Amino acid sequence: MEETCKILFQPENEYIVVKKGENLLKAAMAADVHINASCGGAGSCGKCRVVIETGEVERDPSPKLTEADIAQGYALACRATIQTDLTVGIPIESQIGDKRIFARKEPVPVAGHILSAEEWQERLPKWDLSPSTQKVHLTLDSPSLDDNTSDAERVKRGLSVNAGMRDVVVDFPVLQRLPNMLRQSGWDVTVTVLDSGEELRAVRIEQGDTTARQSAIAIDVGTTTISAELLDLKTGTVTAKASDYNAQVAFGEDVITRIIYATKGTGLAKLQSVVVGTIWNLIKNLVETADIEYCNVTHIVVAGNTTMMHLLLGLNPKYIREEPYIPSGTFFPWVKASDLGLRIAAGVYLYALPCVSSYVGGDITAGILGSGIFNTDKLTLYIDIGTNGEMVLGNKDWLLSCSCSAGPAFEGGGVKHGMRATRGAIEQVRINKGNFEPMILTVENKRPIGVCGSGLIDCLSEMFLSGVINEKGKINLDLPTNRVRATEGASEYVLVGAEDSATRRDIVITEVDIDNLMRAKAAVYAGIQILVHSMDLEMEFIEELLIAGAFGRYLDIEKAVTIGLLPDIGFDKIKFVGNGSLLGAHLSCLSKELLVKAQEIARQMTYLELSANPGFMDHYISALFFPHTNLEDFPSVAAKLAEVRAMQSAMRAQDAGNGVIA
Amino acid sequence: MEETCKILFQPENEYIVVKKGENLLKAAMAADVHINASCGGAGSCGKCRVVIETGEVERDPSPKLTEADIAQGYALACRATIQTDLTVGIPIESQIGDKRIFARKEPVPVAGHILSAEEWQERLPKWDLSPSTQKVHLTLDSPSLDDNTSDAERVKRGLSVNAGMRDVVVDFPVLQRLPNMLRQSGWDVTVTVLDSGEELRAVRIEQGDTTARQSAIAIDVGTTTISAELLDLKTGTVTAKASDYNAQVAFGEDVITRIIYATKGTGLAKLQSVVVGTIWNLIKNLVETADIEYCNVTHIVVAGNTTMMHLLLGLNPKYIREEPYIPSGTFFPWVKASDLGLRIAAGVYLYALPCVSSYVGGDITAGILGSGIFNTDKLTLYIDIGTNGEMVLGNKDWLLSCSCSAGPAFEGGGVKHGMRATRGAIEQVRINKGNFEPMILTVENKRPIGVCGSGLIDCLSEMFLSGVINEKGKINLDLPTNRVRATEGASEYVLVGAEDSATRRDIVITEVDIDNLMRAKAAVYAGIQILVHSMDLEMEFIEELLIAGAFGRYLDIEKAVTIGLLPDIGFDKIKFVGNGSLLGAHLSCLSKELLVKAQEIARQMTYLELSANPGFMDHYISALFFPHTNLEDFPSVAAKLAEVRAMQSAMRAQDAGNGVIA
Repeated sequence: MEETCKILFQPENEYIVVKKGENLLKAAMAADVHINASCGGAGSCGKCRVVIETGEVERDPSPKLTEADIAQGYALACRATIQTDLTVGIPIESQIGDKRIFARKEPVPVAGHILSAEEWQERLPKWDLSPSTQKVHLTLDSPSLDDNTSDAERVKRGLSVNAGMRDVVVDFPVLQRLPNMLRQSGWDVTVTVLDSGEELRAVRIEQGDTTARQSAIAIDVGTTTISAELLDLKTGTVTAKASDYNAQVAFGEDVITRIIYATKGTGLAKLQSVVVGTIWNLIKNLVETADIEYCNVTHIVVAGNTTMMHLLLGLNPKYIREEPYIPSGTFFPWVKASDLGLRIAAGVYLYALPCVSSYVGGDITAGILGSGIFNTDKLTLYIDIGTNGEMVLGNKDWLLSCSCSAGPAFEGGGVKHGMRATRGAIEQVRINKGNFEPMILTVENKRPIGVCGSGLIDCLSEMFLSGVINEKGKINLDLPTNRVRATEGASEYVLVGAEDSATRRDIVITEVDIDNLMRAKAAVYAGIQILVHSMDLEMEFIEELLIAGAFGRYLDIEKAVTIGLLPDIGFDKIKFVGNGSLLGAHLSCLSKELLVKAQEIARQMTYLELSANPGFMDHYISALFFPHTNLEDFPSVAAKLAEVRAMQSAMRAQDAGNGVIA
Repeated sequence: MEETCKILFQPENEYIVVKKGENLLKAAMAADVHINASCGGAGSCGKCRVVIETGEVERDPSPKLTEADIAQGYALACRATIQTDLTVGIPIESQIGDKRIFARKEPVPVAGHILSAEEWQERLPKWDLSPSTQKVHLTLDSPSLDDNTSDAERVKRGLSVNAGMRDVVVDFPVLQRLPNMLRQSGWDVTVTVLDSGEELRAVRIEQGDTTARQSAIAIDVGTTTISAELLDLKTGTVTAKASDYNAQVAFGEDVITRIIYATKGTGLAKLQSVVVGTIWNLIKNLVETADIEYCNVTHIVVAGNTTMMHLLLGLNPKYIREEPYIPSGTFFPWVKASDLGLRIAAGVYLYALPCVSSYVGGDITAGILGSGIFNTDKLTLYIDIGTNGEMVLGNKDWLLSCSCSAGPAFEGGGVKHGMRATRGAIEQVRINKGNFEPMILTVENKRPIGVCGSGLIDCLSEMFLSGVINEKGKINLDLPTNRVRATEGASEYVLVGAEDSATRRDIVITEVDIDNLMRAKAAVYAGIQILVHSMDLEMEFIEELLIAGAFGRYLDIEKAVTIGLLPDIGFDKIKFVGNGSLLGAHLSCLSKELLVKAQEIARQMTYLELSANPGFMDHYISALFFPHTNLEDFPSVAAKLAEVRAMQSAMRAQDAGNGVIA
């Protein structure tokens, strides 16, 4: 059991239970307790001073905290690590101001949860640990004048007799090693056989019995990040994990710029070698971490979007980006890893999970496999949001997919201070509904550099709820705060002042940024509507909404619903699948039946081309509102909005009573 | 019709009909007319002077023939080309001597004939021109937003709809070319599909309709010679032929020395690259001769002995030569020609016909296919004699094979003046039964350098019949000729004196040579006996005897029977198949059903290992006689022998009467 600590915040009288070792500012954020914090947790603004009234915290040193402060119990919340149960007093200067106007809210359960391994298993049909490669140990009779069949035929006879494998094709490199290997081993060998679906192929021969040592590698080749797992094929367990940026990032942030690069000169070869380089580094990392031999690995399964698969396999991606958006291929044969430049060990073959279309790739096929949608009665919506939003609606009887170009806004692109979710990116934002002051948290608690996707959604949601922006995304310059201001270009909200940012410049959200984000969320929502309406269904019929992808992992579901990115169908229906692409690759590594299932999924999934869909534009335009033109479709948002507005009215009335000019 | 000329030789009154342009000495040889000729047709000895009494010949200039000679009608037979019907007078000095003792013989029909193309067709089951590669012309619908399947799936759909080809696997290089090719061609392409037996594979894509241009290449990879044919797959006809020495010859004359070379250091890679070099030169030659493009070629089928197949494919041949003689493999998958270093054109695959064992290779499988034995009711014996003698006995119901190590004697190895059948090799020999003087003919009519295989068999047969050697192969030193002599090492017969040889040394046949040749012929004959007796059959039950291989092409059947190399079962049963290996490769190129048939032949053929056969040694020892210990098994030889001996007696009596000392 992990140790937990109960933290009581005063004077709010809010408490929360968190893990021992948690950061105190994060705990406050989770408890919905506001502490002024402008520097994202970097410890530079010194605004998040709190008093540890009971219990113990570890304080990171900070020039903003003197020995005298510590003697009086002060700590900087962003620099304090929780060690015991605590009572934390928030001094007046660290509160939003002098007003505590909000009534206590009922605690909101964390919306969405990441499915556990056990939950996954329940979602899948029964499957056996039966990987595409199998090691067969053979103790062969040595040849004689009376039994002088060739080495290859002897091995094939052994495979037939011992493993029931008939008509095995012997790979040339195996044929080449066969004679010496058989004799050096005293006719005692282990043969690795790949079942490609079309044929059985002997891909490796080793001396003695090596059947106890067999691993496979599952890889998710993302546009930004590549993640890999080493799987022990004897136990089916993960023995190592690794991930790294896709080194192709240096040649373009998104698939479109990569495609453009690939179609010029030797660009394709370059991008292929670069992604292979990243994968090779990950494989080295996995093998070293698990302390195995490279030759334990017998196969690799990769999943990724259609462009990533083209670039990895060296296929021309040019027409993926030109209407009518045609990939070179969607199904790919098993290929020798060495043919791609991955010289991991002799006879390792790689399988790229099949794609559905140019913009619904093998990562989605993998996700549908891994999340078990192909096996459920429940009407399920699967969403993977990145530069493109891929969506799949369906159940065990049918699957309908589409993809919308969300643009790079959710990944920080096309947003003035947008950035990827790296160190210093603002990932969580709260805005006080009274004085419109922000509370922010950055990745790794560094001085803020910009805002990443989840931070942007938080930001939009908070700006909208607090009334900094209206339902059209326009900033209300009449608010009594200097955080909103008109500039030459567009009005903006100052999230972090220059004095607290790592860049020494204001970090702002502009109306242009908001417009870009609104277009992105509108495209996703319109896509969902098209899927639902194509089947003559209603949004409320969706029984489960699964969110996949790295972006999804940090997404605050409630905020995403508030801005109208996700449908307002009840938070209990929403779950995170984490990296669905990696999960599908993982399962396909372990079970050839599931790999075949992935092929069936890709083959059977219908793809709706949104740009060819006459209804898309109407849905899209209706979605260019917060949360949506049809507010009645977002009842929880409407209720929250009403609540906040009522509070703000009450506050203004109180301010008026106190003589404060609103 | 070819022009023929009738040549009448005087005083013998023998005539023969030959083609216009034939060499006059050859015509005399064929007519069994003896003209003194020691220099093998080089024009240097000047002994073959004849008088052209009527008709015209073309005389090559020779210092042995003056203007005055020509004015008198003289010609050197070896330098004269027949232009018209002739009456040829053989002057006394060009005759064997002054004695014409042999009665005129009844003309003997040429023993054995080379099967014509029509005869081949009759031997095979009905087969269609249906090569393993097929070109399919596709006019595809261009994609649209409503029909946005991937390029590869579109092509596969086209192949399914237009050619009924389902589940075609698209080769990676094709997948890589697909997008640009489809669009540049306006969706009008030709796809080449390989039917490997296990799967259909799209191996090439070309712009427009190229179906009219499709060729394949059949290759016989011999230890000494590589022969190749270019086949037009639209018509099934041969459009070019080429052959050359296997450049591996520089690394060893026979398979054993090649295997030894291959098993040291990088020997295997070297031998592979060298044979690929020879094949590449032949392909260039074929393509240039036929004036086609390299890319017209869509597949290659090769046949060769098991060692040659190992060396071509880069497989370890080491254990082929070590008891119990095990090859790496006998069945080989289709392999990309480029993987072997043959960069003929994109997507050309090569198939090596399957072998039966280490010493019954794909050349024999091919020969059995080509000669139609697998399809006949007749009990057939198929023989391919080289360093190894491979023999197959059987019919459509069963096939039994064996191989005996004949040693290199028939290829001139282990024989003092033995040589391959190249320029200056004595290829035909007659020995006068009266005075034991030889009449010889060399390849290309050059001064003699040595004796090749067919010449050696001629020589042995003539020495035996004339009594120069006895049935044990011992030279009769008592003969009244200085051509036989005892030396320090072994007795010998002088075939060519130093004054007439190109080497300026005597060309002799020694008792050691004879012993080696006898062992070789005994091994072959004993092998045949084992095959026949294994099936409880008798030699006379053989209904057809097919002789394959380059050696067979020059073999004088009658002489081969005389020495006991071939069974004495009647010359009319014996036929030459020419290059059976090339023929089988040719047929497998044209018809995938026949290629499958070749696989069945190799799989079903039983292999008898002679070294493990208890009866072999007895048969072998019995065969160490001319023609055999059991002379009753060679009735035609016995009759001939009796006839010659009677003539010699008559001659001796006549000499005695004339006072000549015998």
